Formats: sequence, C-alpha cells, structure tokens
Amino acid sequence: MYRSHTCGELRKENIGSQVTLAGWVQTIRDKGNIIWVDLRDRYGLVQIVGEIGVVSDEVMANLKALGREYVVQVTGEVIERYDKNPKMVTGDIEIKATSVVLLNASLTPPFTIEDQTDGGEELKMKYRYLDLRRKPVQEKLKLRHKVSLETRKYLDTVNFMEVETPYLIKSTPEGARDFVVPSRMNPGQFYALPQSPQTFKQLLMVSGYDRYYQIVKCFRDEDLRADRQPEFTQIDCEMAFVDQEDILNTFEGLIKHLFKTCRNYEFNYEFPRMTYAEAMEKYGSDKPDIRFDMSFVNLTSLAQGKDFAIFDNAELVLAITAKGCGEYTRKQLDALVDFVKRPQIGASGLIYCKCNEDGSYKSTVDKFYDQAALGAWANVCGAEKGDLIFVMSGNTDKVRSQMNELRLHLGTELGLRDPNVFAPLWVLDFPLLEWDENSGRYHAMHHPFTSPKKEDFHLLATEPGKVRANAYDLAMNGVELGGGSIRIHNKELQAKMFELLGFSDEEAKAQFGFLLNAFEYGAPPHGGLAFGFDRLVATMGGSDSIRDYIAFPKNNSGRDVMIDSPAPLALEQMEELFLASTAPAE
Amino acid sequence: MYRSHTCGELRKENIGSQVTLAGWVQTIRDKGNIIWVDLRDRYGLVQIVGEIGVVSDEVMANLKALGREYVVQVTGEVIERYDKNPKMVTGDIEIKATSVVLLNASLTPPFTIEDQTDGGEELKMKYRYLDLRRKPVQEKLKLRHKVSLETRKYLDTVNFMEVETPYLIKSTPEGARDFVVPSRMNPGQFYALPQSPQTFKQLLMVSGYDRYYQIVKCFRDEDLRADRQPEFTQIDCEMAFVDQEDILNTFEGLIKHLFKTCRNYEFNYEFPRMTYAEAMEKYGSDKPDIRFDMSFVNLTSLAQGKDFAIFDNAELVLAITAKGCGEYTRKQLDALVDFVKRPQIGASGLIYCKCNEDGSYKSTVDKFYDQAALGAWANVCGAEKGDLIFVMSGNTDKVRSQMNELRLHLGTELGLRDPNVFAPLWVLDFPLLEWDENSGRYHAMHHPFTSPKKEDFHLLATEPGKVRANAYDLAMNGVELGGGSIRIHNKELQAKMFELLGFSDEEAKAQFGFLLNAFEYGAPPHGGLAFGFDRLVATMGGSDSIRDYIAFPKNNSGRDVMIDSPAPLALEQMEELFLASTAPAE
Repeated sequence: MYRSHTCGELRKENIGSQVTLAGWVQTIRDKGNIIWVDLRDRYGLVQIVGEIGVVSDEVMANLKALGREYVVQVTGEVIERYDKNPKMVTGDIEIKATSVVLLNASLTPPFTIEDQTDGGEELKMKYRYLDLRRKPVQEKLKLRHKVSLETRKYLDTVNFMEVETPYLIKSTPEGARDFVVPSRMNPGQFYALPQSPQTFKQLLMVSGYDRYYQIVKCFRDEDLRADRQPEFTQIDCEMAFVDQEDILNTFEGLIKHLFKTCRNYEFNYEFPRMTYAEAMEKYGSDKPDIRFDMSFVNLTSLAQGKDFAIFDNAELVLAITAKGCGEYTRKQLDALVDFVKRPQIGASGLIYCKCNEDGSYKSTVDKFYDQAALGAWANVCGAEKGDLIFVMSGNTDKVRSQMNELRLHLGTELGLRDPNVFAPLWVLDFPLLEWDENSGRYHAMHHPFTSPKKEDFHLLATEPGKVRANAYDLAMNGVELGGGSIRIHNKELQAKMFELLGFSDEEAKAQFGFLLNAFEYGAPPHGGLAFGFDRLVATMGGSDSIRDYIAFPKNNSGRDVMIDSPAPLALEQMEELFLASTAPAE
Repeated sequence: MYRSHTCGELRKENIGSQVTLAGWVQTIRDKGNIIWVDLRDRYGLVQIVGEIGVVSDEVMANLKALGREYVVQVTGEVIERYDKNPKMVTGDIEIKATSVVLLNASLTPPFTIEDQTDGGEELKMKYRYLDLRRKPVQEKLKLRHKVSLETRKYLDTVNFMEVETPYLIKSTPEGARDFVVPSRMNPGQFYALPQSPQTFKQLLMVSGYDRYYQIVKCFRDEDLRADRQPEFTQIDCEMAFVDQEDILNTFEGLIKHLFKTCRNYEFNYEFPRMTYAEAMEKYGSDKPDIRFDMSFVNLTSLAQGKDFAIFDNAELVLAITAKGCGEYTRKQLDALVDFVKRPQIGASGLIYCKCNEDGSYKSTVDKFYDQAALGAWANVCGAEKGDLIFVMSGNTDKVRSQMNELRLHLGTELGLRDPNVFAPLWVLDFPLLEWDENSGRYHAMHHPFTSPKKEDFHLLATEPGKVRANAYDLAMNGVELGGGSIRIHNKELQAKMFELLGFSDEEAKAQFGFLLNAFEYGAPPHGGLAFGFDRLVATMGGSDSIRDYIAFPKNNSGRDVMIDSPAPLALEQMEELFLASTAPAE
C-alpha cells in the first residue's frame, strides 16, 4: 500500500487526519522558507506544504529537491488551507508533510503537462504517454470507458450476448482493402483481419443466438483521410426474428441510456426520422446536422427562364437563408465565395441576395433578377428583412453536396452547432444499390445481404437504381454514428441480388460460400446495426476528432510514431514466412 | 415483432393466453391425426400440437410439411398438457396451433442438433454454425458472456479503467513468434499483432492511469499443441502504487466474485499460497492440483545405500501414496507402468509397494528392501494397510515432472478431480531467470521487466539462477489461470537486468526504446497480472478443453475449416503489398 488516499478525495472533513498520498509533481512554488507542491494522480490534485521550522529539515530538503513530474510519496496531516482555492475541489485543505519519499525522478518533459499544453501535435504523438497524463485527455478516455461499460450493461439487460468472433479470418476481394497476415504454418497462405464481423454475426443468427453484440476492433487498409484510423472500434449488433422497427427501438434505447448515464443528458422524445431521399433534398447529406434548420429551398422553377444562363443550364438551383446575416461585409461574403470554391468543395461560384432593412434586395445577379423576382425568392425561402440568401446551381448531386458544405460552415460560423446540444436523426430507406462508373455495374450500397423494401421488389428488374433498402443510419450533429440493415434470409431473393450485382453462381460461392451454405440450414429473419465506437464517444464528448478518444492513435500515414511502427522485419522472419519484399529500395 | 414470447418461458400460469413463437423445429412426432412439434430457440424448447378436427386443415398441413431445423412462426393458445413432461421446464403446457408460418426451410443437418450429437469433431468444426445450436455449446458461450460482463462490472467498482491498446504494433524478436501484418502504405514494413499488451499497459502506468484492464485478443504464432489457439483472449490488468499483496488481494476478490455470480460457488476462505519451490518439491508442478493431497515424499535417504543401483545413482527418489489401492491387480499396475513409460512422460520404470491387509509389504524391489525397510517407507509416506506406494527416481527435474504426471493420472482415475470442485492456489516467488541451454545464457522467466525480490539482490551478481522474482501465478485444479509480476521501475536495476540477460545498451534500446524512454519521465512503482480468459472460463465450466468455449475456434494447424482460412491471396493483392511468395509449389 503506497497510499491511504488519492489526490482528488480530501476535503474539509478530513482535516486533522494523517494521510499518505502518491503521485506526480504538477507544480512547485518555492518561496525559500515555505514551499508548495501540487501533487497529481488520476483522481485529482492536492497541495502539499512545507515550511522551515514547521516541518523537519529532511522533509524540507526533500521537497526542495523535487522537480516537475517526479513521482513521490508524501505522508502528512490534512490541515485547513489559509488561502483557499475555490477552483480546486481539494482547495480547502493542504497536506503538512511529515515524510517525503522520492519514488522516481523525471527528466523535464518535452511539453507542459497542463490542460492547455505548449506541445505540438507531432511531439504529443511521439510522447503520447506524457500527453495521456493531461487531464482533458484522461477525461476523454474515462468517458470512453464509461460508454463501453454502459453499452454492455444495457445490452445485457435486454438479453444480448457478447460473442467474440475471430480476428484471423479470410480475405474477400469485395469492399475496402483488407489487412492480411501471412501464415507460417500454411506457407503461401494468408489470414485477413476483419473489416467488420459481418458474416460471423449473421452466422450467429443462423446458430440461434438471437441477440448478439460485440465491442470489437475492426481493420481497414484505406488511404487515410484526416481522422480515419486503420484500426477502429465498433459496437457490432445483430438480432433475429425482428423487423426494422424492433431494431430502431432497441438501439434508440441504447443511445438514450448512454447519454443519460454518461453525459447526464436526457432525450425525452422519440428520435426524429427522415428518409434518405428527404435528407438529400433538404440537407444534401445522408447525415444532416439538424441542430439548426437552414434547409434547402428549391429555386429551380423561380430562377430559370430569366436569361441567366448559369441557372437556365442547371439541373437544380438551391437556396438557403442565413438569418440575420444581411449586414455581412464584402470581406465576409468574399470569404464564403472562396470557401465554396476550394477544390475540396469545387463550386464555381456563390450567388447571394441581401434582404435589406428597407425592404429592398441587393443581389449579385441584379442584372437578371428585378426586385419582384428577388422578392419571390425571399418569399419561398421565408427570408425576412436582415437575412441573407445564398444560391448555388448545377448538377443535382454536386450542388447538394456543395450546399451541404456551405450550410455546415455557416452553422459553425453562426454558432448554431453547440457541441453540448445533441440532435439525433434516423435516416431511413437508403438506396439498395449504387452505380459504379468504373466497373459499369451496380454495387451494393451497404453489402450484398441487405434486403430491398418489399414495395420496391417490382423495380428490381426494371429500375434497380430506384430500389430502396431496409437500411438505416443513426446520424447525430452531422455525423454518422452507426448504421445497419435488415438482411436477406430468402434464398431466391439472395440469388436475384447476386445476379443484379453481376456475380455468377461460382463467384458468389467462392466469396460467400460458407455463409450461403449456412443459409441452407434454417436462417431466421434477421438484421443488425453497428456503431462506430470512436465516433460515438467523440460525439458524446462534444468533439469532431476521434483521435483524442483513442489511447494510442496512429497518424495519417498509419504510423505509430511513439513505437515507430510499422518497421522492416528481420530477414529470418521473412524467410520463415516464405515471403520476399519487392518494395523499391529507399 | 415475430414473437410475443420465447420458447423457454411459458408455464402453467400462461394457460389460456394467445402467444406467437418463432424458432427451429427440434423434433416432430406425427401420429397421423395428431402431430407434436418441439420448437427451439436460445431460451428453451416448447411443444406445439396439432390435431385433425381441432386445428384447421391448413395448420395441420403446414405442421406436417415441417422438417428438422425448419424455421417457423407459430401462433396459438397455451393449453395444459395431458401427458406432462417433468424434464422440460415448459413441460406442463403445449401450444395448440392456430397459425403456422414457414419462415425458412432447412436441408437435413449433417449431424443431429442434440445434447449428445452423432457428429464427429471435424464435421462439427466445418459446420460450426450448426454445432453452435446445440444446448451444451450455447451454455458454454453464455457462461463466457457472463464471466466477461461480471469481470468488467467488478473491476469498474474498484476503479479500474478499460483502455483499448492497439492491435497493429511492432514486432520484437524476443519471446514467442509474432504474427505480422504488411503495411501497404509503408512498403517493405510490417506491423505485428500483440502477444500481449504488456508494454502498453506499462506505458499507461507511466501515464498515471493507475488501474487499467482490458479483455483483449492476443496472438502467438506457435506450433500449436492440442488446445492452443493462435488467437486467444486475456483479462489483462495493471496497477500502480501497489505491492504484490495489493495485487493478490485485488484479483482474489475478482475470482471470488466471478465464481459467486457466474457459478453460485462461494470461496469462504483465503486462497492458499505456496512458493514455487514448495510447489515443485511437493507436487513437481508450478500449478499443482490441490483438490487432492497425494503429495511427494522424499525417499532418497531411506532408499539409498541398499545396493539398488537405480536408486543409489539417482539425484532424487520420490514416493506417493495411493490410498486404498493395495488391491490393484497386475493388469492395473502394468497399465500404470506403461503410462509413465510413454514417450511424453519418459520414465524408465515405476516401482511400487503394496501395503497388505495383514501388515506385510509386497514390492517390485523385494530383493533389495526387506519388510523393515519397506515399513520405513510406509512410515514416512503415511501409508496404511490397503494403500499402494509408487516410487520413481532420477534427475530432480525429470522425476518431479514424471511423478506429477503420475499423480494427476491417479487423481483422475480415483475420481479425486471433481470438475465441480475448485481449488485455487497462489504460487509465489517464481525464479527470475531460467538458463537456456541453446543460447548458453539466462532468459527472463516472465519478461525482462519483472523485478527480483529485494532479499535476493545480493545473488544477482553471484548466483543469478537462484534469484527469486516478485512473480506469481494463480493456479486452479492443475491449470494456470493467470500470472504476473511487480515490474522494475528503477533505472539502475533495469540496466543490471539487461546486463544479466546479455543485452547491450544498444540492443536494449532497439527493442524496448520507447518503454525505457517513458521510464525516464517518472515511472511509478507498478505491477500487474493477466488471466487466460479462455482457460478461466473453461475451468469455471468444469472443462479441460478451451476450444468449446470459443465460438469459432481454429484447428491444430491454425486453420478455420468452416471459412477455409488461411488462403492464398490474389496476385494483385500481393503486388500492392510489395510481397512475393517464396513458398514451395505444392
């Protein structure tokens, strides 16, 4: 026992007790005859005090020998603090040291271990074990732990079983790239790491497990975008003998439970629902941020036929209204034009129309649209005096996606995206298929086992692109928290799906053989859902970035710079695995 | 909603209610005008009944069309059963069907889905999804789920945080072989899958996380022995500011909690403790099964000096007593001699001495030992009339190991190893080092960060082989459930350890650089422990075999025969990874 108490728990009530604490030196204030040391552990901070004549010379010398991040064990008496610190929960007391034992010294850390540190991103990654000492980072990992435990507790109460599925599985050419693992015992052969336990959880439904979940690492060898990780964590779930409604209700219950227990945030309403089609039409996104409105207004018919070629040639003209932004300066407006013209967004321009306080309109297309025409715009947009209307046009998909970016950007600028407000939204009826230009064929939008909606069966043969799936996502604050679908459990329908996706019988068998086999032995109706756990926790924490919620994340090249991995293998190791590298010499 | 109830929950109290059930057809008894179908789901079995004139013709036809393992939805009325079945918890009632909907048909399964199945090991592995339907297998996975959840609940209440450590880490040449993962984005470089999160959990202690745990998959590329898996699960734990006593108490608490909550088995005593030295001396094993005594008696001094060359030349002569086995037949005794002579055990012979009911002794070495001498043996062995003494001799390590095998074998034969009795034992003070004949140097028995016992520091330079470590195992029923150690957190001591292990400064840096670096920044005293989760659950379930407690295990060649993995990669995939295979063509 190195301690009787932790550094965060002592209060006024403890005054007079003898305590032993252990932790790290956070700060030292040495006034010569008196010295204060803040001692830190996972549970908090507490002040240690030594004064010449009050504590022994040895204790005084030991205190004076301390440095930042030294590990120390302190015994002493809890006394009332003269100069109380209301910002510290232990701020009413301090410890008059009677013994100070140095447990370990420390080099000076390369950045300060403070809430706001002076360390840059790269330095913090290299010394992640020091970054992890900072309170904001610890709070994030504590939230992650709590969400994970509460997920398990909740799912257990509604009869879910956690079943561990294997990590060394089989590579499939479909979908994203797999990470693979050479097998030494089976020369020339490889395992793959799972992108998700999809097939195994469906097998478990065939096996009668009924309600399965797992909090599980998944792996995807993609070219990393910002805030993607090659390994990530999923809450993976599947249920049998259910329809879509059962699944939505079950997991809405989970999310409500998590926010209540981990964030003390209550959703006392049913999560709103919206079809994919409506989400795209109103927000240009399948994961709209509905913390604020600013939904799209279709201006096409109003805007066309006025000899403004850009609009006349456009498939779609869209408007959004920024409330109270009528007074935006030229500089502000130019910045927005620049924003949409950035290559990541790729708009060719941005048209705006100010609704002046005097009832007049001022637009960048005054030449083509008179006051009456602009008034008609304002009318359908619901724009009032002092508002600002933005208009973009072009190809439907593109203009929606561009307008979505602008809308989110404005939402952020206008402070409409409070990270402590949470706006969940079920997005339903995703398309079953998407057309792939490269291969000239349809791909499954979700995966080939997703079931089409019954009312769209008749379109399968004629207009497959219009078929909607029993597929759903849970969006929150502009982020996709998770998604899933009701699977196909009918052999004939599955065969039709493979045909649509351009699989021959042989190809289907080669890729999904064991699952198709399993389906021959009594597959129940089933469906499921998976949440991106890193993303869920980050959203709950009010953050956009998942990296801070991962204890040891990798950088954008998939490297762990702390342990310097990946790295070349020893030649003997390569030989044992029957592998030769064909990588170009550096 | 496919069902109003599950198949396991209906009782007398439900008689008269209308219910809808969904599940698999377990058995069909068709007597022509009356038909009974047992319907099964994860929650149990219930009998459905149809009778001509009582149910509709359609229902009757639907029932008659069913086959084994068909998936079906049945609606009907709960009625009292005429011929009650006390063996079924739902045996008081049955369902008079009013609607029978076939949800899916099934091929005839390749083996029966019964508690005792006719399927062989290989067939069951290939169709694991069907084997998983069997109740004994489901019970095992349910136990696993429960143990995992209760582990988390318990550790949470004592302030442990679950922190996920990465799976894509770095290969180290020490210890067992790593599985590796080529990095496409870093050509020619590889990640490794963790054999354990050892270094990361020590980093977390440096980071101040204090009490860490994780239930985590680990990977070891070993030539598989029976009942080893290339991927396995650990309960991995680490604590800071603790000594060995704190760790033993904490995890003894965990084990007691698990047995109580998951097995309703109460340990109302402190787990016994034994040093490694004593365990080897008394049981020839570092994980003795203490459900029964039969401990070793050292006969060396008594047995030597009687001109029996085999004993005279032996380093150690050991005896054990089998109570009440004095009447063993020649055949039984020969079988035991054969047992110890098997190459896996390798004894050259087995000497025995019967303690006859008339007070005389009959031994295989009567020529050298008279009745008085044998009486002296019986005396030190505590053997009485009707008992049987077994004696083996030779090199200390070998004879202990051989006698251990014999002891366990006899324990099993004599029914002294009841799988529903649990005998935990802390084994303490493991040796720090073991001599490796191959490399001609010492290896760390646990790992290079294990701390030596203070009182043995003085032996480090002179007799390193005698130094004991602050290392401990928890054994139960002859199985090692887990183990750990107090780590070195002192730089100078660590340097001395590396020197002992024959590491140069450069080698130590190359292999453990980031951990040694971290230790420069204020490492607290810390230690930990890891339980083999598969082994723990199997032991709790009263089984020797871990395979049944894993949903999708691999066979002894590391293959998953169900999904047929590992498998060759497509050439393009190899090229993308900058890899060529040097495996010999088949």
